[in-house]
Amino acid sequence: MKIAVFGTGMVGDTIGSRLIELGHQVMMGSRTANNEKALAFVAKHKSGASAGMFLEAATFGEIIFNCTKGEASMNALREAERALDGKIIIDVANPLDFSRGMPPSLIQSLSNTNSLGEEIQKTFPKTQVVKTLNTMWCGLMVNPNLIGGGDHINYICGNDAGAKSKVKSLLKEFGWQEKNILDLGDITNARGTEAVLPIWLRVWAATQNGAFNFKLVS
Amino acid sequence: MKIAVFGTGMVGDTIGSRLIELGHQVMMGSRTANNEKALAFVAKHKSGASAGMFLEAATFGEIIFNCTKGEASMNALREAERALDGKIIIDVANPLDFSRGMPPSLIQSLSNTNSLGEEIQKTFPKTQVVKTLNTMWCGLMVNPNLIGGGDHINYICGNDAGAKSKVKSLLKEFGWQEKNILDLGDITNARGTEAVLPIWLRVWAATQNGAFNFKLVS
Repeated sequence: MKIAVFGTGMVGDTIGSRLIELGHQVMMGSRTANNEKALAFVAKHKSGASAGMFLEAATFGEIIFNCTKGEASMNALREAERALDGKIIIDVANPLDFSRGMPPSLIQSLSNTNSLGEEIQKTFPKTQVVKTLNTMWCGLMVNPNLIGGGDHINYICGNDAGAKSKVKSLLKEFGWQEKNILDLGDITNARGTEAVLPIWLRVWAATQNGAFNFKLVS
Repeated sequence: MKIAVFGTGMVGDTIGSRLIELGHQVMMGSRTANNEKALAFVAKHKSGASAGMFLEAATFGEIIFNCTKGEASMNALREAERALDGKIIIDVANPLDFSRGMPPSLIQSLSNTNSLGEEIQKTFPKTQVVKTLNTMWCGLMVNPNLIGGGDHINYICGNDAGAKSKVKSLLKEFGWQEKNILDLGDITNARGTEAVLPIWLRVWAATQNGAFNFKLVS
């Protein structure tokens, strides 16, 4: 499949690389045509990788992974607006606000009674936004079997059942088991999954280990 | 030990009853002298239970469990202010805002860059506030062994190490294992544990089962 990955940071690089490993073609999107990290991403893969500005990448991809920083996500997507209609946006970003120091809080206007996932869906109503994978370290997103036999939770939410079904297929390619992909319902449930960050960051600080996730026990 | 339990709802009743079962003396505190639920709580226990207004209960208890609704907690504690100095307040409450429908959001002024736990500590600086147990259904708070052999997470935070140590002792009486009580640090970490509610409420809705908790997998 042709997939756009927005964002050149660790998350974008990890997801993009894993998608290529699985046989997909990936265009990494960024603000500029000659982004150094995007070019490095292309260089390290023998084939399947390309880079371009956000609009080019969105034009290329049938699916778009949003791996930009939460504070930059809306602007990144606006730059690609002409190519977004009808596409699935897998929103992996979190609306973190680092302006008050560590650990970050959530961006006030994108939390509690709103969320980044919802804001993207409201702003680009002809896309299908699916929020998933945002509640863990990126190494686990694409390889859940790294810990606990892969038996820990990943949430998914979005308004379109067909889009969620396609995204689930990709998640299974990453190694996620059906029983551990919990569908919370529509995109407003991103309020819940993005709110995992305030506790995730503190567990990380207390344990000094980011390679953890939560498992539901009942 | 003499313990005050503020709040006559399901959480207060569950914690108070378990404390009595463990041999403690409990005074349930409420706004009025003749609260029906508090009197029913007293009536159902053969001994060890009493009821009074918030100030009486705080005077009685060496430790105070705050099991009031989050929106009512500050007022409840203010009514007991004269008896709070030097006491440990175990804050089990969550600042839920039901005014916008279900699921509730968090009270804006008590979340993200603040928390109920912090607000209590700031308002009553001569108390030792310890936040714990607020991330699960009350049945599990006092009996973690109901699910998964008790092997799931309970967070604790607060500014005073001695107070946290005393609270940990009580938690162990409830059945909590040392390895599953994760100390996140000072009381500002209540921002993290109270932020579990937005995801907790949605998992509950999706699974139709409140008797669950999260386990850390790494």
